[in-house]
Amino acid sequence: MFDYLRDPQEIYAKSFATIEAEADLARFSETERPVAIRIIHACGMVEMAGQITFAGDLCGAATQALRTGKPVLCDAEMVRHGIISRLLPAENPVLCTLNDGDTHGLAAQLGTTRSAAAVEAWTDHIEGAIIAIGNAPTALFHLLEAIHNGRLPKPAALIGMPVGFVGAAESKDALIEHAGDIPFVTLRGRFGGSAVTAATVNALARLAR
Amino acid sequence: MFDYLRDPQEIYAKSFATIEAEADLARFSETERPVAIRIIHACGMVEMAGQITFAGDLCGAATQALRTGKPVLCDAEMVRHGIISRLLPAENPVLCTLNDGDTHGLAAQLGTTRSAAAVEAWTDHIEGAIIAIGNAPTALFHLLEAIHNGRLPKPAALIGMPVGFVGAAESKDALIEHAGDIPFVTLRGRFGGSAVTAATVNALARLAR
Repeated sequence: MFDYLRDPQEIYAKSFATIEAEADLARFSETERPVAIRIIHACGMVEMAGQITFAGDLCGAATQALRTGKPVLCDAEMVRHGIISRLLPAENPVLCTLNDGDTHGLAAQLGTTRSAAAVEAWTDHIEGAIIAIGNAPTALFHLLEAIHNGRLPKPAALIGMPVGFVGAAESKDALIEHAGDIPFVTLRGRFGGSAVTAATVNALARLAR
Repeated sequence: MFDYLRDPQEIYAKSFATIEAEADLARFSETERPVAIRIIHACGMVEMAGQITFAGDLCGAATQALRTGKPVLCDAEMVRHGIISRLLPAENPVLCTLNDGDTHGLAAQLGTTRSAAAVEAWTDHIEGAIIAIGNAPTALFHLLEAIHNGRLPKPAALIGMPVGFVGAAESKDALIEHAGDIPFVTLRGRFGGSAVTAATVNALARLAR
């Protein structure tokens, strides 16, 4: 009835060829390039190439952390479920503390969102870990403050791609300005989300294998 | 350290006010409007308002199906995990058959993707159900063909928002042209994804309560 590509390998090949043809990838390094391509692939928008910002040796730091079995800490269940566990090189734990029992009460106590309060539960896991924030601007703001105050140790690498109309663009600008020596990748502006964030983790996991 | 909104209710209110102020929502009906707002909210892009296409009484059909306990059938685990189960009005099952044991073999046998083959496993659940396709163009193409051929019965409502560079825009055009009397909502073009799809289900569930 319809004439369409059905072969998964052909679909991937044609998708990546389209991205290479249409997206401006010139400013990415050899290792950043496949990550940028996967981000664009996940959202279907070549114009997002211009919003992708890498800092430090994000790819090197994240792949090293993944190879040594460090966990991936996610701000949302959708991020967690978008990460393809068979790609992870060291059976890395993928954690989301958003629905932990005490997050709701802690959020009320701190006067913030549940997503921000959930960051507090990362204490025992965050040192040298990979952070994947794909939903809540408040989680990213809260994390940057907690690291700056010395209340939380530093992760190895930070993927910061929250989405929305309130705080998303601002939290990513804050990341760019205040990440210090933490390598990161972000997608400037209001767009972001669980799909691009999980795709970034999956791309880094492929690099780490 | 940072000055940002922390109160969840204030964040929602400001987000929706921004969408109302910036997005062109004039062509949506009173019932479609909150669904369109949630789609825009999920992706952070007011310009997506122009891509949203409703057909038939999508909201009426979907809310009726949800109230009577019909299942929600998803093409991807990320869609399934983006659906907030406490919003569903009748403890509706939310199913994703992508990782069922025989999907891989069936895909090879049919010469198609695993996402398309997974649609075949919807046979016993699809009549009167709500379909939520937020990832694979091949799943949407395959479903339209199977319904057209009479191999699968009709769902009550179809959310068709696959994403990507190969077949996404085309499968949504096919939906617009060949859905027949099945009410649907889609997001024309390459953009789509699990977040906007799950947000649509959640918005319809709110309407159904």
